Order: sequence, then C-alpha cells, then structure tokens
Amino acid sequence: MTDNRPETPLLDRIAGPSDLRGMSDGDLAKLAAELRNEVISAVSQTGGHLGSSLGVVELAVAIHAVFNTPMDKLIWDVGHQCYPHKILTGRRDRIRTLRQKDGLSGFTKRSESEHDPFGAAHSSTSISAALGFAVGRDMGRPTGDAIAVIGDGAISAGMAYEALNNAGAEGRRLFVILNDNEMSIAPPVGAMSSYLSRIYASDPLARMKALGEGFEKAMPAPMRQGAKRARQIVTGLSGAGTVFEELGFDYVGPIDGHDLNQLLPVLRAARTRATGPVLIHCCTIKGKGYGPAEGAADRGHGVSKFDPATGAQAKKKGGAPSYTSVFGRALTAEAAKDERIVAVTAAMPSGTGVNLMADRFPGRVFDVGIAEQHAVTFAAGMAASGLRPFCAIYSTFLQRGYDQVVHDVALQKLPVRFAIDRAGLVGADGATHAGAYDIAYLGNLPGMTLMAPGDEAELVHMVATAAAHDAGPIAFRYPRGAGAGVDMPERGELLEIGKGRVLQEGEDVAILSYGAHLQECLAAAEALGASGVSVSVADARFAKPLDSDLLKRLALGHRALITVEQGAEGGFGAIVLHALAGLGLFDRGLAVRTLALPDRNIEQASPEQMYEDAGMSSAHIVRLARQALGLGGDVVPLHRTAI
Amino acid sequence: MTDNRPETPLLDRIAGPSDLRGMSDGDLAKLAAELRNEVISAVSQTGGHLGSSLGVVELAVAIHAVFNTPMDKLIWDVGHQCYPHKILTGRRDRIRTLRQKDGLSGFTKRSESEHDPFGAAHSSTSISAALGFAVGRDMGRPTGDAIAVIGDGAISAGMAYEALNNAGAEGRRLFVILNDNEMSIAPPVGAMSSYLSRIYASDPLARMKALGEGFEKAMPAPMRQGAKRARQIVTGLSGAGTVFEELGFDYVGPIDGHDLNQLLPVLRAARTRATGPVLIHCCTIKGKGYGPAEGAADRGHGVSKFDPATGAQAKKKGGAPSYTSVFGRALTAEAAKDERIVAVTAAMPSGTGVNLMADRFPGRVFDVGIAEQHAVTFAAGMAASGLRPFCAIYSTFLQRGYDQVVHDVALQKLPVRFAIDRAGLVGADGATHAGAYDIAYLGNLPGMTLMAPGDEAELVHMVATAAAHDAGPIAFRYPRGAGAGVDMPERGELLEIGKGRVLQEGEDVAILSYGAHLQECLAAAEALGASGVSVSVADARFAKPLDSDLLKRLALGHRALITVEQGAEGGFGAIVLHALAGLGLFDRGLAVRTLALPDRNIEQASPEQMYEDAGMSSAHIVRLARQALGLGGDVVPLHRTAI
Repeated sequence: MTDNRPETPLLDRIAGPSDLRGMSDGDLAKLAAELRNEVISAVSQTGGHLGSSLGVVELAVAIHAVFNTPMDKLIWDVGHQCYPHKILTGRRDRIRTLRQKDGLSGFTKRSESEHDPFGAAHSSTSISAALGFAVGRDMGRPTGDAIAVIGDGAISAGMAYEALNNAGAEGRRLFVILNDNEMSIAPPVGAMSSYLSRIYASDPLARMKALGEGFEKAMPAPMRQGAKRARQIVTGLSGAGTVFEELGFDYVGPIDGHDLNQLLPVLRAARTRATGPVLIHCCTIKGKGYGPAEGAADRGHGVSKFDPATGAQAKKKGGAPSYTSVFGRALTAEAAKDERIVAVTAAMPSGTGVNLMADRFPGRVFDVGIAEQHAVTFAAGMAASGLRPFCAIYSTFLQRGYDQVVHDVALQKLPVRFAIDRAGLVGADGATHAGAYDIAYLGNLPGMTLMAPGDEAELVHMVATAAAHDAGPIAFRYPRGAGAGVDMPERGELLEIGKGRVLQEGEDVAILSYGAHLQECLAAAEALGASGVSVSVADARFAKPLDSDLLKRLALGHRALITVEQGAEGGFGAIVLHALAGLGLFDRGLAVRTLALPDRNIEQASPEQMYEDAGMSSAHIVRLARQALGLGGDVVPLHRTAI
Repeated sequence: MTDNRPETPLLDRIAGPSDLRGMSDGDLAKLAAELRNEVISAVSQTGGHLGSSLGVVELAVAIHAVFNTPMDKLIWDVGHQCYPHKILTGRRDRIRTLRQKDGLSGFTKRSESEHDPFGAAHSSTSISAALGFAVGRDMGRPTGDAIAVIGDGAISAGMAYEALNNAGAEGRRLFVILNDNEMSIAPPVGAMSSYLSRIYASDPLARMKALGEGFEKAMPAPMRQGAKRARQIVTGLSGAGTVFEELGFDYVGPIDGHDLNQLLPVLRAARTRATGPVLIHCCTIKGKGYGPAEGAADRGHGVSKFDPATGAQAKKKGGAPSYTSVFGRALTAEAAKDERIVAVTAAMPSGTGVNLMADRFPGRVFDVGIAEQHAVTFAAGMAASGLRPFCAIYSTFLQRGYDQVVHDVALQKLPVRFAIDRAGLVGADGATHAGAYDIAYLGNLPGMTLMAPGDEAELVHMVATAAAHDAGPIAFRYPRGAGAGVDMPERGELLEIGKGRVLQEGEDVAILSYGAHLQECLAAAEALGASGVSVSVADARFAKPLDSDLLKRLALGHRALITVEQGAEGGFGAIVLHALAGLGLFDRGLAVRTLALPDRNIEQASPEQMYEDAGMSSAHIVRLARQALGLGGDVVPLHRTAI
C-alpha cells in the first residue's frame, strides 16, 4: 500500500515541531492538509481512532506552531486523538505501526517521546496534570507553559470539573483548549453538553465576543475591564458570563477549530497576554475532511483497516459471538421478563452492549455520560428504591467508581449488578485499558458476590443469576472479543451461588480456573493428558463466595493445584490461597501455584500475544503443572484455543 | 448528667416526623429551639459532629414538616449533620449513644432506620442516590419525592457535579437543598466556593429573586416565563442565570436556612410546583445557636465531650504523639531540606497533618478541596515536572482516586508519595471510614512501593525514605491515634527498599507483621514465650517489594508462619502467600495463617474494641499461633499494649 501514500512535500520537511515555527500561516494551512492525508493513509493500514485525530489536525499544527513544545507541555486528554501530534513530533516513520505489537501506542505515552509529557487513555485527566506542570514551572522546574486539550465529552466528567475548579482558584497561567466536537464516542449526554450546544448556537454573537476578547487582551488592565464591561452590555451576557468564567477562567471563543486564521491569532494572543487560566473554546468536527468519516454515524471514531478511496472497512471474521453481544442479548431477555431491570452506562452504550436493551426498552437504559462515580451511586439509589439495576462498565473504567462500589453499594448491601466487560488483557488499547484489577478490588468487599463465565453460554446463566440476586451486590466479568464458540442455551438458568463445576476428573494435578481462561486450561489439560499426567479441570464460576467444598476436594485429591485467572495477583488466586491457609491445607504439603498477570504492564499486541507475553498461554500452564509435580521437560500443547 | 437535660415540652411529644405536620409554623420554630438544645445536650455527653448538626436544625424541622418522610426519601450528604434528623425520627431515646459501641451511628445508616433511605459518610453522594430514587418513583416503585441536602464543600466534588449534570439532563422532579455554610471542615477552597460567596454577597437582590421565584411558581407557565424574564431585567441576571440553572435546575435562593418563615414557604412552594429538578440554596451557620461552637475556628465541627455551659471540651490524655502529627513534623523537616517537596490534601489539612508544613511553607501545600481524583493526578503532574509531591489522603478517601493512582501515577511510574493516614480500623467513625483496602488495591500495581511503619519512629524513617525515592510511586500507611510511645529519632534515615527487620529470633513460629499491629504481635510473642513457644517476630516494613530473603528464612526456619496486618484480605497476607506459592515453599508443608480483617464490616467502637471484635487482638494471635503449631489450650497474653 506504500505506493498509495499521499504527496506531502511540506510534511516531508518536518522533523519536529520547531520546524513549524518558521513557516508562514499559509504554509501551515497547506501542511495541515498534508497532515490530514497522512493520518488517513496511516490509519487505513492500522485501524484506530480516525475521527478524533482528523478533528484536531489544525489544532495540532497551531499549538505546535505557537507554543514552544516540548519545553511547553502539551497534554492531549484521553490521548486517542494524538496521531497528527505523533506525526509532527518525530514519530512519522513509525506511524504505520500504531496500535500494533512493538509499535506506537494509540495514546500518548511518556516512555515513547518527550513530546508526550503526560500519557493518557482514560479521560478527563489533562487539566489536573497541566495544573501540576504549571505549579512545577512556578516553582522553578525546567518546564514552560502547560496546555491541556480536552473534548466536550471528557470535560463533563467530575474529575475535569474538580480540576477546573481548583485551577480557577489557583489562578496560575494555564491553557485549557476545549475541543468541542459536539460528540464524544456516543451522542453527548448531560446538561453540560446542551449548555455547550447553546453557546455554539449563538454563533455570530459569540464570534464577536471572541474577537472582542482578543482586542481586550491587548489593552492595559483598567481599560480591559472597561472594554469587558462594554462587551457585556453589547452581548447581553452578564458579568458572570459562562460557567468557565464563573469558575475563574478567562473564556475565549467559540472559534472554528479548523480555521488556522482563527486558531493562530487566538493562540498567539493568549500566549502573549495570559496571566491566569484561560479556556479557549474551539469547535471542531470529528472526522473532518474525510467524507466517509464525516458521514458515518460515529464519525469514524474507531475503525478497522479501510480502503482510503472509499472508506470501506475490513470486515471482521465471522465466528463465535462476542461476550459483549451475548451480554446485551441476555440482559434484554431478562429485561423483557422483569420490568424492574434497568441498566446504566457511562458513555459506552454500544461498547457495553446495553444499546441492545435500549433499542427495545429505551426508558430503562440510562447513559449518564463519562461519570463512573455517579453511575455507580445512581445505580445504588435505584437499587434502594426496589429496581434491579445492571451497571455495565469496563473493568478499567470501574476503577473510577471504586469508592462508590465500596461505600455506597457494598457497605449498604444494595443489589447492584455489575457487568464488567473488557476483563483481562484487551489488545490494541494496551496496558492502560487492561482489566487487571477488578477481582482484587472487589474480592475483599464483604457481601459482594463475584462470578466469571468460562465461556459465553455461562455468561447467559450469570446474567440470569445476577438478575435474580437481591441479597446484595453481584458482579460478573468477561473479556473483550469472541466467545469460545460453544452451543448457546435458549434461556439463562439460575446458578447456585458459590458453587463451581468440574469439567474433567483426574488424579495428579487440579487446574482451578476462574473465567474465560478456562479454554486455555482445557487445552493445557489435553496436552498434559497426552504426556501421561492425569488432570482435573474445574471452573470455579464464583470467586466469592468461593466453593470451599470443591477446593477441599481438589486440594486433598491431587498432588498439585493450580489457579488460573485473567487478572492481577491479589484476586482469585489470593482468595484461594487465603482459604487454603484458613483450612490448614498447606500444613502437610500441597504444591500450589497461582497463574495470574505478572507484576509488570503488558504492552499492546493481540490478546493472544499479550497472554503469551504474560506467561499465561496453555503451554505456560503445562509447564507450571509439571514444575509443581516435580516433572521436568517441556510439553507442547496439542493445539491452541482462541482466548 | 441526666439532670442537666433541657426542657423540651414540644419535642417530648414528637414520636416521628408525622407529628410535625399538624403543628403551626410558630410551634415548629419553638420545636427547633428545643431540638437545638437537645442536640447540644446529647453531644456534650458523646462528642461528635456538633457544628454541622446545629447548622441544620431548622432545615431538618422544615423538611420533615413539609415532606412526607419516610415515603419521601430524605438523603443527608455525608450524613454527619444527621443528629437533629435522628432525634426527630424515633431515635431520640438512643441519641446519647451516638458513635459509641452498640450505639447510634454518627452518620445516616440504612440498617438503623427507614428514615435513612441511603446511608452516607463519604461526601458528595446524595444527588446521585436521590436521582436513583426519583427514577424508581417514576418507574412505579413505592417511593415518593427525593430530597438531597448537600453542603457547599461537598457539592464542589466532581461526583456531585456529575450528578447535577445528569439530573439536569434527566429533568425529573428532584430536590437538591444546598446547605451553604460557607465552610466545610476546613475553610472552603476552590472557585465554586468563591462563586457561592459572590451569590451570597448579593443578598438583597437575591432575596428579591427568591421571593419573585416563589411568586412565579404560582403562575401558569407562559406567564411564568414572562415574569422570569422581567425578573432577569430587574436583577440584571442574564437568562443563563446561575451555574445551577445552566445545568438544568430551577434555582431558588439564597434563603436564610435558620428562618422557618423563609424555609417553610419555599419548601411548600417547591413541593407543590416543581416538575423538574430544583436547587434550593439555603445559607446556614455552622454551630448556629451555640456560642462556643459559633465562636470556634472550626465552628465546633468535631468535638469531644464538653461542658454545655461553657463549651469546654474534655482534654485528650497526654502520651505518645499521634501518627498524624509525627507525619506532619517529619514532612516539614524533609521540606526544609528539599525545596522540591510539595504536599497535596483534599480538604483535610489538619486531619492529615500537612497543616504543619503549611504553617512553615504555605506556598508549597495545596488544598484542592474535596477532589481526590484531581488531587492524585495533580500530584502526578507535579511529579512529572520534577517536584517531589506528597499526596496525603486517608485510606478510605484514597478509594476516590484509585483509578488515578493506577492510570496516572503507577502506569507512568511517576514518583508520587502517598501518605495514607487512618489505615485500619478508626473507631467512632465506624465501618464507612475503615482503612481496610489500601494494601490490596495498591499492592498489585506494577512499580508501586508499599511501606507501613511498625511504630511512630519508623514513620519518620519512611517519610525520609519516600522523599528520596524518585524511582516510582511509593506509599506508606499508618493508623489513626497515638503511636506506641517509642523513642523518637532526631532525623529520618533512609531505609533499604524492600528489606524487613527481625525484632526477635525464635524457632517454633514466626510472626511476620506489616504495620502498626507490630505492637500486638510483640505482646502475643511475649505471651507465647511465657507458655514455652519459641517465637520469631519480624517487621516486614515493605509489602512491596517483599523481602523474599527474609520470607524464605522465616518459612524454612519455623514450623509455622503467621502474617498480621491492619487491613482486609488480599493485601499483605496475599502478597506473602503468592510469594510462598511461587517459591514452592508450600510443597513440603508449612503451617501458614494470615491474620487480617474478617469478611464483614466492623461496627464503631474504640479501635481496640474493634480489633477485638475483628478477632485481631494479641490473644487471637496467640491462639492462631498455637493452632498452627498443633498446640491446644488458650494462653492469655501477659498484658495488652495500646493499638
């Protein structure tokens, strides 16, 4: 596809951002056009966050042209819009390795470049980090200005509000660029979103306001106050002004974030004149400049490889349904039977599959925006009122609502059902999105019930079991991607709480699996069996309450016991170890091994490659079992299953 | 003290809130005065959150008189202002057991009364929960209106903003009462706080606005719109109005929250007329009506037992300094040596002891308000700029910043120093404030270093060690209350990372302690020794990296090994168990036991009583050691140490 690369004569001369600073405004506009084509070309080969990156092409050019990066610290919120930034900051030669094994991260990443002063991937962190750099600068650290670029979706999260609030009070020089594309991943929700729409609708007035602001900035302070007041009289806006001004920011905008004739002067004026925190409101279009993205419902948010000429994306292979879609369908089936069932998502309706329920029961699915803290306690309130809420949040994002799970849900024993998608390693999104910790951070909460399905059919039963469970909170975790391809049940059946199942009986070693790595365990057992080792395989189903009868049986009936989970240490294995210690089952000798994610971050690759990297393939299970049994030599598994 | 109880003829006739609903407004005012005296009398005997409770006496009377509680759901944010509410809702007979063992909780608590529909203790959860109840009502659950009462400090947290944002967009009938006492625990910080001050300063205008609003409410909608516009012209407030109106709320106020002649009509009008979310802004005075509280710097926020006539509080006993003050002094000493050291607190400067550093280096201590998410990432940004930030947050509140610790700090290996106070059980604040989980939720983060001091001298060394540690994040946890009374070092010395220490060498059983329960371990060892059992006692100092040499030595040199920690399972014990499994040290038999908090919530009492309840006294350690060794019979420890 190399021959299809666009002509980029100006871009070819850019080794780093300093090369932008001698260019004319006209050449910068031409450079932006080339940069846009390069992004399209690169992402057509790698897949990735196309729409967001196309939306900030001019912003990336303008910021790097005006500010003194990397001495000035440019922080892209979430970071998935960073592709133009990476091309401009010396990483163009690797841009076609985006999101691949050993390639560039799909997010900003400190270890990748000095131009990524603060990595991101979860949303709404940029203003906090930028304020940290501003303090460092004011205290003499070798750092210049701090610029946070944050989207309208991300700025609606509580964390961003906390940071705006604190930055406004601190009053330090700081630049927040609100990248308002009127659409985060899903259509925007929340009152802040409609407030931003109202500002945008008042375009001519606001434009004037922006121009006036630029003018005012050039004047001495007393005159400036007068001019500001005059402008308020003209525009009819009160002294209080926007919500940002109420929080202590100078507000500039809205301006057209694709028009360098607006962007460059405003950024230059802001850089020259700002003494305190400034919010620059830029309106952009996600997918800008690429028809197929602009025309798509999701504005090309996340795409697979595609044909640049048509935008046609590579089709996913057929095969087993995804865990996400199995959850969505099972939830909808339960909702059809029980009108008390409601669902909550934090700006991820299709990512979590609750869009399937929303299609049929729109009034019973609540998208609260990027607001995991609120999502959890809102669900707790609904549970307290007698509803049966499912709170569907990825493992990595539920970390944002951890205190609420502890304090509002678990402590009060409220029956919130947590559907935890993206458990374990997730592939191209890498370490920032790994669902590594949920078993550990939920497993020691009194009254919490924890489940994980060994395959997608089990997930259907767990949705039914959770729906019926009113005794307290209950959570079930499942991975990204396709199921194991097992036969699907017609309906979900209630599982007995706290009881596992034995899939295969043996005598030498017992493998006790929790969750979707069961498929790897079965493959390992097959390989071990072929080498003459007699293996039991059990599926715990529940990490809490743990099936202690099953555990005793496995511990007493085998020479070795291996736990396997798609998560960090401190989770399922730790629960088993604590139980064995409490039961005194170590006292006379038991070769126990725990297989969990290692104590390091696993970098992006396919999930299968990542588990290989993590030492968690079926071959590793085989090796661990033989080592525990005191047997030498490697046995290669007969075949690999999909993870 | 019973004879000093106030005369309360009206209050004596109140069995529950429904008794308020037949009373005249004049009698309600008299009742409020009696209620205030009863609160003062009760708290003089128990200690507790006096100032906050005195600030809401009239609010509690007015809400219960106007709304149909408990069918209507009244949710007190944080809950520490609930004493008048408890007295009015059938719990007056137990009000003098507040915060005592087996007594009333100092917070609202679902299990205590149907009048506490949603418990609290951590701040800023009430609007989310109230919205949940509103949805339940709209979906046919047997619940009436939802009313959240939230303070000006609590509403500045991101979580409350998320909830306001979502509630504004949902547009459901919902009441949020902003209890603006212009002071949370510490003087208020943040831009929201000064914004609220500005509104308050415009009192005559605002009063008119409130009256106008009440008038408008009574009119049909089209006329109402006209009246609103007219009012805006008069008051000079734009259509956008307050930040609350921008978020989709009807805004009423500010009104005097101690004046029932304002409170009752406004609440009645709001209850009659509201169709969507309404925010009622009440201004109150913390400590209102009790001179010694109103006159105190903290407005009587948290008091010990006192003489009602003078307000003179019972003096704390002398003795060993608190861990908190030892931390504060050690931090200040390090800050004096290194100008890169800064500190962050989330609205708890004196609770965490960073006020000591602020006294000497005010520009280097940042109080960000109730904003733990921002606090952590702000610290991460400062670390990235080359500063050496200490982020001082209680264990239970750091749960609010968990994702930020994972994603912004640990993943980027940024050297933020976490000073985790209130680790373990905390006494009168009960289960909601237990610092039970931090070892578990931090222990499996790659690159994190975890320490816990066995006594207050060790804490001094750990502060120094953390200050010097630039290789990645480092955290140290220590309990509420007084240290062990050991000799204090002149200065902090650097500890070797990942190395424990042996305090006592023996042969039968090894006790491996992590943190301040070391004192109980030493007492247990003494008792065991007196009964002829030879005991080693080791202080791990580090949970991560774990001292595996020490662990091997203990495991191979003793018949039994017991881990002890002031935290839940999944923490230090789990780290040890995983290590033993990985080293194959279970294979030939090792009687390991882990002593950690049990899998249930431990209710309020003294910390010592709570650890007794938890099965974690030195006597329990003795019993566990003997059981692991296969010895029968109980041995009573020779003496108890302070915990």
